[in-house]
Amino acid sequence: MADVLSGVSSPSEVRALPEDALPGLCESLREAIITLCGRVGGHLGASLGAVELVVALHRVFHTPQDAILFDVGHQAYAHKLLTGRRDRMHTLRQAGGIAPFLDPRESPHDALAAGHACTAISAALGVLAGRRQLEHRGHVVAVVGDGALTGGLSFEGLNNAGGSHLPLVVVVNDNQMSISANVGAIPALLRTRNARAFFESLGFTYLGPVDGHDLGALTQALREAKASSRPVVVHALTKKGRGFPPAEADEQTRGHAMGPYEWRAGKLVRSRGGLPTFSEAFATVLGEALERDPRVVVVTPAMLEGSALTGLKTRYPDRVHDVGIAEQHAVTFCAGLAAAGARPVCVVYSTFLQRAYDQVVHDVCLPGLPVVFALDRAGLVGADGATHQGAYDVSFLRPLPGLTQWAPVVGEDLGPMLTTALQAAGPSVLRFPRGTLPAVPPELHVGDAPVAGARWLKRAQAPRLTLVTLGPLGLAALEAVRDEPDWSVLDARRAWPLDEAALLEAAASGHVVVAEEGTTRGGLGSAVLELYAASGVHPRVKLVGMPDVFLPHGDARVQRAELGLDAVGLRRAGRGLLGEEAP
Amino acid sequence: MADVLSGVSSPSEVRALPEDALPGLCESLREAIITLCGRVGGHLGASLGAVELVVALHRVFHTPQDAILFDVGHQAYAHKLLTGRRDRMHTLRQAGGIAPFLDPRESPHDALAAGHACTAISAALGVLAGRRQLEHRGHVVAVVGDGALTGGLSFEGLNNAGGSHLPLVVVVNDNQMSISANVGAIPALLRTRNARAFFESLGFTYLGPVDGHDLGALTQALREAKASSRPVVVHALTKKGRGFPPAEADEQTRGHAMGPYEWRAGKLVRSRGGLPTFSEAFATVLGEALERDPRVVVVTPAMLEGSALTGLKTRYPDRVHDVGIAEQHAVTFCAGLAAAGARPVCVVYSTFLQRAYDQVVHDVCLPGLPVVFALDRAGLVGADGATHQGAYDVSFLRPLPGLTQWAPVVGEDLGPMLTTALQAAGPSVLRFPRGTLPAVPPELHVGDAPVAGARWLKRAQAPRLTLVTLGPLGLAALEAVRDEPDWSVLDARRAWPLDEAALLEAAASGHVVVAEEGTTRGGLGSAVLELYAASGVHPRVKLVGMPDVFLPHGDARVQRAELGLDAVGLRRAGRGLLGEEAP
Repeated sequence: MADVLSGVSSPSEVRALPEDALPGLCESLREAIITLCGRVGGHLGASLGAVELVVALHRVFHTPQDAILFDVGHQAYAHKLLTGRRDRMHTLRQAGGIAPFLDPRESPHDALAAGHACTAISAALGVLAGRRQLEHRGHVVAVVGDGALTGGLSFEGLNNAGGSHLPLVVVVNDNQMSISANVGAIPALLRTRNARAFFESLGFTYLGPVDGHDLGALTQALREAKASSRPVVVHALTKKGRGFPPAEADEQTRGHAMGPYEWRAGKLVRSRGGLPTFSEAFATVLGEALERDPRVVVVTPAMLEGSALTGLKTRYPDRVHDVGIAEQHAVTFCAGLAAAGARPVCVVYSTFLQRAYDQVVHDVCLPGLPVVFALDRAGLVGADGATHQGAYDVSFLRPLPGLTQWAPVVGEDLGPMLTTALQAAGPSVLRFPRGTLPAVPPELHVGDAPVAGARWLKRAQAPRLTLVTLGPLGLAALEAVRDEPDWSVLDARRAWPLDEAALLEAAASGHVVVAEEGTTRGGLGSAVLELYAASGVHPRVKLVGMPDVFLPHGDARVQRAELGLDAVGLRRAGRGLLGEEAP
Repeated sequence: MADVLSGVSSPSEVRALPEDALPGLCESLREAIITLCGRVGGHLGASLGAVELVVALHRVFHTPQDAILFDVGHQAYAHKLLTGRRDRMHTLRQAGGIAPFLDPRESPHDALAAGHACTAISAALGVLAGRRQLEHRGHVVAVVGDGALTGGLSFEGLNNAGGSHLPLVVVVNDNQMSISANVGAIPALLRTRNARAFFESLGFTYLGPVDGHDLGALTQALREAKASSRPVVVHALTKKGRGFPPAEADEQTRGHAMGPYEWRAGKLVRSRGGLPTFSEAFATVLGEALERDPRVVVVTPAMLEGSALTGLKTRYPDRVHDVGIAEQHAVTFCAGLAAAGARPVCVVYSTFLQRAYDQVVHDVCLPGLPVVFALDRAGLVGADGATHQGAYDVSFLRPLPGLTQWAPVVGEDLGPMLTTALQAAGPSVLRFPRGTLPAVPPELHVGDAPVAGARWLKRAQAPRLTLVTLGPLGLAALEAVRDEPDWSVLDARRAWPLDEAALLEAAASGHVVVAEEGTTRGGLGSAVLELYAASGVHPRVKLVGMPDVFLPHGDARVQRAELGLDAVGLRRAGRGLLGEEAP
């Protein structure tokens, strides 16, 4: 079986295959994807569901002359395997290896970078309009999951494409799920004749529904779409996880993204470590808040699994709202909830809050409503790569009047911080990283009381230097100063507003290193510099954080070391600032 | 006629009126709105079109027990007049006066702050869900223009509301326009039976279309909607500018937002000054770029009029794309255009780019595509108030790798800057303010060549202090240093990346004032502090900019003086930094 795939390393070779070789090709692709994800983890479910679709697309359209834009790229492992990347797929999601999503720098067959949902239709319409403008030819196809149809950007794209009369082809890969079950009116819409009504009302020709695992039917529908002179939707019904029983059986996610796994005695064994994560710890304290205060409600944009909220959804089905892939709505919905007197906690990845920035500014901060934003995956995200780094939240949120930004050092900080945020009159952010919980060192005092300003993790007698940190970096700082008796460590605890008294005390040590897992441009360090300038104090200051590039996928621990965001790096930064040789 | 209105200062009094008094009330409201806008300017067209709708809403629903959320608030002057603000309406849009949009701090009848389109459905669903959660009663109504239906946030709200089964009432105030003609598939959709199909496919009961100027029909439809136990849409057809012939006759905008005007010998005379604006000057150089380079295309989200692009749209109908109220799509569409080899210029207000932040990060900057963002209304916006201030763009854009931010001092800078941006391999921003063009002082050298680093506007022989400015503040700085022979002035020209050599030369003067029309948190001043810290230089630095509050509406010139963003203020800042008395 694997022979079919090994003879196929480009789309033209896919097109050259006789029809009766295609089922074998699909089987080989599935085998390759299952083996690959078993070894290195990855977005298994969506990619398995799209195998026939990818093959049919490459049979009908000729990339790169024709452009196929896959939304997100979760679904695109088969596309990667068929476009010259098979031999390197074992490096998926690893430093220097194949990217988790799509990237034109990786292959000319990837028409646009993709990693956030809902962008494909708008981008494809732009590619088509741009080609027309420059009198280039070629067909343009957007491949969109049904989950992404709940996102407003997809709708904006549909509205403009439908009104444009350009022959854009939109393929809806309908596996009836976002990451988990899809929400809102869209699922029912797609299951009924309303699908035709909906797309036709938006100016599209509607073809389907087509069995997305029937290569003949798919090919025929795509050929018909290719021949159209106006916007057309091909509605393909697929099954997430298709062909891999453990994924098909997992009704929650159908194997959306899995860590490495292996077969042992006929059973799937996931090799995930047993340590609890920050997400899980936050879900625990959130459950306590739900129990304690009937005003508390939870809102998440399609991240019930990602943010470990499925248990809470089961316990509080009416108070935990999954609004689907719809970050803008999630935030403005929270504003309405808060205006009505509820206490909404919006749980969202740092990178995805970027999608609702204006709603945070305009709907929450401007009226000063008490919404709590729990920012998961703030900082380095490791294997998820450039599109998912939580690098910018402190910087884009800090200018907003009245918004308080908290960051826990350890999981035990989450409870008091959430309590504090829920008691506040205005909006708050609570940012925590991807990853497992660290142990609490003896130097760290964690109480139950609401938190206020910064916290001294170590206060030297006659300090020459202070390490000011945000979040778990406080632990690295404690390690960094172990052999430096005259270095202090201050956990800023808030990225904004600053604890001015504590930070001025830090300035008095003469040398201040500010370290954060986020960009240094406009972040905590920048805030500290603003404070010192306004106060007329002039310690030597060094900022340590994420650099001025889009950090690729890799091992987060290795990247931290490379960026100096660990104990060794912080010590080196301090010694450098003091003008001493690093050890 | 005016007597009817003078006897009505609250919604309960509207409800107490006999039916036959209502036409007179509507006529009085129109008269009041026309007179008001003639005096102080404002959003005339939408408010005139919604007079009967507002009256009918207050007859059927009982605010504040019931909540009515008007999207944007353009349409809500009649609502303001009927909810206790009539006596202060002459202060509309002026410092300390009635706000341009809606604000719960102004009246309990305003259920939520509003000034950006598309938020009402999501916010209303939140209010309804929050009230249910807390076992409060009351109906909740979102009033949405057809223009706002092209915005993705509205769709996200509809999808969630339709799937929720909650009895949300959505009134579509369909005047067939955004600011100018509506775009995409939505207009055709609303004009046909597809309207019913569309809303029903999303889970709503559909009532209409109703004549939005027929009080009886409106009242009946709203009563029916109020009685519904599930989500319902009332589709009302209205006419923007209704009852004011000059607005009705203006097919371009139907009097969307007008400056003050007066009647002279039976003719409408707008009293706008004749000086060209930054927007107009930018449109002129953009026209030259379109003429020069066939790759250039223009994209704007419903701001053809606001950004003075109607002339270009007429000249280049296929190369100037108005995508409607759809900022996210505008940016991702630009990414597609750029990926196809075109050179898109996205013209958008600073405040509205907040709506497409993730698209700037993810779709443009991450792949490094050469999109030019022309940020209109960057800085103080005067009468448009808190929701429209262009305060945050420098701060939220500065962390993004590879994005260059330009700012012109005078209109003559726009051409060379646009040329430079269009020649760049990556993305650029060009931020310019609301308002008329300043004169070019003799000290200012403006050439035709592409621009690079910072520009010395005055270089003192033995400088004691340097004023570093962004944008037109350079002119205020020149005035500020007129009697200060040892003060220099540096036009930063780029907010990012910095011209490090020039700024280090500024540091050598020992004292540096950095002034910008934007927040000081994370802005240019903050960038300068980061540079100085990294370079180990320690001049005394003072940052001048917009403060840590949401600035309300007012006279921009007065506000600049209050914030120290004028010649007097800059001089005072410099003297203060030098430890000298201000004069």
